[in-house]
Amino acid sequence: MATAPGSAGTRGRRRGRPGYDKETLLHIAVTLFNERGYDGTSMEDLGKKLGITKSAIYYHVDSKEELLRLGTNRALDELFAVAADAEVADGRAIDRLEHLVRGSVRVLVEQLPFVTLLLRVRGNTEVERAALDRRREFDRIVGELVWQAEKEGDVRPDVDPATTARLLFGMVNSIIEWYRPRFDADDAGLADAVARIAFDGIRVNGRA
Amino acid sequence: MATAPGSAGTRGRRRGRPGYDKETLLHIAVTLFNERGYDGTSMEDLGKKLGITKSAIYYHVDSKEELLRLGTNRALDELFAVAADAEVADGRAIDRLEHLVRGSVRVLVEQLPFVTLLLRVRGNTEVERAALDRRREFDRIVGELVWQAEKEGDVRPDVDPATTARLLFGMVNSIIEWYRPRFDADDAGLADAVARIAFDGIRVNGRA
Repeated sequence: MATAPGSAGTRGRRRGRPGYDKETLLHIAVTLFNERGYDGTSMEDLGKKLGITKSAIYYHVDSKEELLRLGTNRALDELFAVAADAEVADGRAIDRLEHLVRGSVRVLVEQLPFVTLLLRVRGNTEVERAALDRRREFDRIVGELVWQAEKEGDVRPDVDPATTARLLFGMVNSIIEWYRPRFDADDAGLADAVARIAFDGIRVNGRA
Repeated sequence: MATAPGSAGTRGRRRGRPGYDKETLLHIAVTLFNERGYDGTSMEDLGKKLGITKSAIYYHVDSKEELLRLGTNRALDELFAVAADAEVADGRAIDRLEHLVRGSVRVLVEQLPFVTLLLRVRGNTEVERAALDRRREFDRIVGELVWQAEKEGDVRPDVDPATTARLLFGMVNSIIEWYRPRFDADDAGLADAVARIAFDGIRVNGRA
């Protein structure tokens, strides 16, 4: 939202607050939502975790829902940037799909708490429903690419494209369940692993 | 637990209760846990959903945790039956692994609410930790089969076996996110789709 000219604006002023900045607050809030569930976490819980009062939190955000909106949008914005690339790029659909899979793995790893929050959203509030709508739009882009790649003869025709798309991103999204960042982590290696297994399968030899 | 001979036993008597039987109670409880979260569902909520009093529920089970234990064990017992088959069967590890994948898809579809409950367990209580321990044991069996299949030259050696196992079952488990039972459902078709994509990949042609 734009701020009226000549006014510092509520949000503008808020940035100057000493202590936790909004970004750190968001990170800690999202981590807590992931641990205890969004519904199970109150602003009071968050305040306790941070060692600040509820009103110190409200200095940065208007509500718990705003934290959820900021958190899910962080993940969605990054995923859509990758999807937009894949949609407009030249080349065969299968290659653009692989680009999308690799880019999504990168986003999952880099924005792990935010993507985890997004993937656990169930749709009980307006913010959650909006996040689910954007997820569905992302899934539509994936489905479209799979369908096009099948038409181009590059994706197996013996599984329907919607199921292929779901299983493909089921594998990608499952990373949030076990991936833990490490200093020595090889994220490119993980994207390679996912791309190899998803596109060419775990089997080396053809069927006997 | 065995009942003393000559005694009807608490559980034995409980079965005769008119109204909801224990099996129906369990199904409805697990569905509610999946909708609202286990922590977010009270025995009172469950009573309201069923239109009976809390004490009518306690006629069948001792606690909410018992419902969680029964629900997660339902899924785990079926998954372990499939895994035990795969462990002791003759033949190459890759074929036993495929058998395990197909069997797991069948269990997921047939026991959808119970597997959903199991896969959302986070480990905050003793029952949840016990369920997670059994899940880890299942994952160990999968990891072992992947490792053996790689040694036999049937699974790609360019991804480490632990990652392959995780991605493989990440794909399988993702089914709970979108699969909805239908009268015309073709569960064997779903097992085929998963096996084809997981073992041979979504790509038809070799890399350009």
